[in-house]
Amino acid sequence: MSDHILPPLTLVLGGARSGKSSYAEGLMSALPLPWAYVATAEALDDEMRRRIEQHQARRGAGWLQYEAPLDIATTLSGDAADQPCLVDCLTLWLSNLMHAERHIAQETATLVGALSKRSAPCIMVANEVGLGIVPDNALARRFRDEAGWLNQRIAAVADCVVFIAAGLPMTLKG
Amino acid sequence: MSDHILPPLTLVLGGARSGKSSYAEGLMSALPLPWAYVATAEALDDEMRRRIEQHQARRGAGWLQYEAPLDIATTLSGDAADQPCLVDCLTLWLSNLMHAERHIAQETATLVGALSKRSAPCIMVANEVGLGIVPDNALARRFRDEAGWLNQRIAAVADCVVFIAAGLPMTLKG
Amino acid sequence: MSDHILPPLTLVLGGARSGKSSYAEGLMSALPLPWAYVATAEALDDEMRRRIEQHQARRGAGWLQYEAPLDIATTLSGDAADQPCLVDCLTLWLSNLMHAERHIAQETATLVGALSKRSAPCIMVANEVGLGIVPDNALARRFRDEAGWLNQRIAAVADCVVFIAAGLPMTLKG
Repeated sequence: MSDHILPPLTLVLGGARSGKSSYAEGLMSALPLPWAYVATAEALDDEMRRRIEQHQARRGAGWLQYEAPLDIATTLSGDAADQPCLVDCLTLWLSNLMHAERHIAQETATLVGALSKRSAPCIMVANEVGLGIVPDNALARRFRDEAGWLNQRIAAVADCVVFIAAGLPMTLKG
Repeated sequence: MSDHILPPLTLVLGGARSGKSSYAEGLMSALPLPWAYVATAEALDDEMRRRIEQHQARRGAGWLQYEAPLDIATTLSGDAADQPCLVDCLTLWLSNLMHAERHIAQETATLVGALSKRSAPCIMVANEVGLGIVPDNALARRFRDEAGWLNQRIAAVADCVVFIAAGLPMTLKG
Repeated sequence: MSDHILPPLTLVLGGARSGKSSYAEGLMSALPLPWAYVATAEALDDEMRRRIEQHQARRGAGWLQYEAPLDIATTLSGDAADQPCLVDCLTLWLSNLMHAERHIAQETATLVGALSKRSAPCIMVANEVGLGIVPDNALARRFRDEAGWLNQRIAAVADCVVFIAAGLPMTLKG
C-alpha cells in the first residue's frame, strides 16, 4: 500500500434520524464481504443500548463488528485494514474523545493518517449539529465547534461527501 | 380511484422560518381551485394564534380551510378527498399525536394508507429538527427521533421531496 | 452608479463551524484588492475575542477592516462603497440589533436599499439556525424567527445563494 494514493473515502453527513446510517449501509452492500462495522457507541445506559440494538437488528448478517469508542485509527489500519469499513459515527467518537480529555486535533490527524494508508474503501457517518440556535452552555458550544471542524477536516480528504435529509442524499462532493 | 396508482405527493421539508409554507403555497397555485388547507395547528395560546393569523393573511382567498390536529387521514380521504390539499404541517401533527398519547407508527401507517388512495395532489410541509445539538431532555430527544422517522417514511412514498433554505428549494427527489 | 442595476450580491449560508467564512473569503480572493471586511462582531468577552482573532489570523493581509455591529448599511454605502465587501455575519448583526432594541424590519429595508445602490460586489455570510428543536425560551424563538426571515429577505435580492456544510457548497440560487 502506498502513502500517496488517496483511498476511496466517503463521508455521509446528516441530522438525527435522517437515515444516514441506513444510507451508508446501502453503499456498503455494493462492496465485497466481509464488511467491517466500526462502532464508536458504548452501551452505557438503557437508551443507548436500545439504539445500538436497533441498528444491529437492521444491519443483519454479513458484518464483522469492531468496537472502537476512542481508537478508530488503530482498527482502520489494523484488524480491519483490508476490509471495507463503515465507521458509525464520527460525532460520537468526538464526544468520547472529549469525555476522555484526549487532544482532538492530534487524534484527528492520526485518523486522517490512518485513512490515507488504507486501500479498502471506508465510509464514515457523521452528524451535522451546527444548524440550531447557539447552545446555552459552553461545553455544548465547544462540542458543536469541534464537530464542525472535524466534519470539515474529513470532508476535505474524502472523495465523496453526501448530506442526507429524510433518507435522501444531496451530493456535496464527488 | 385505484389503490394501485401512486398519487402525486410532494414533501416540502425545511427549518423554522425557512419559507417552506410559502413555497408549498406557490406549488398549489398551479393547481385547479378550490385548494384545501389542512391545518394541524390549534390556537391554544397567543403566540400560536398570531402565527396562524399571519399564515392565513398571506394565503388570501381561494382556500377551503380544514382543521385536523390529529386526524389528517380522515380529512384527506373524506371531505377533501378530491381537492388538491396542502397539509401544514406534519411536525405539529406529530407533536399533537404525542401530546394525545396516540400510537405514532399506527397513525403514520393510516396516513400513508390514506395518501395512497388519493388521486388529487397533496403537498405536505414538515420541519427538519434534527440538525442541532442533542437536546437535554428525553421528551425532546424522542420528538426529534419520531420527527426524523416520520420525514423518512413520508419521503419514501413521496414523488417529489424538496428541502427549503432561505426560501429557496434544493431537490432531494423527483 | 445606478439605482436600477442589481449589484452582484452573494449570500453564503451555513451552520456553526461549517466553513462558511472561509468559503466566502475564497470567493473574495477572485476580486481586485483592496477587500473590505465588514465585521459585525464586538469583542465583548474572551470567547468572542478568541473567535475574532482566529478569523483575523486566517484572513491575513489584503483586507481593510470595518467594524459595523449595527450600521452595516452606512459602511456599505459610505467608506466601503466602491470596494468588494465581505459582511461577516448577518446573524450576529441581527443579534446586535435585537440587543439594541432596533426595529428589525426597518433596518433590513435600509440594508436592502444600500445593497441595491452598490456596484462593487458584496458577499454576506449568515447562519442557518432554524434546523434544531424549538428552543425553550421565547427570546430564542423570536431570534430564530427573525434570523429565518432575514435570510429569506436577503436571499430574495441576492444573485447567488450557497448553503455550506462541512466546508462544501450546495447552490441554492445563481
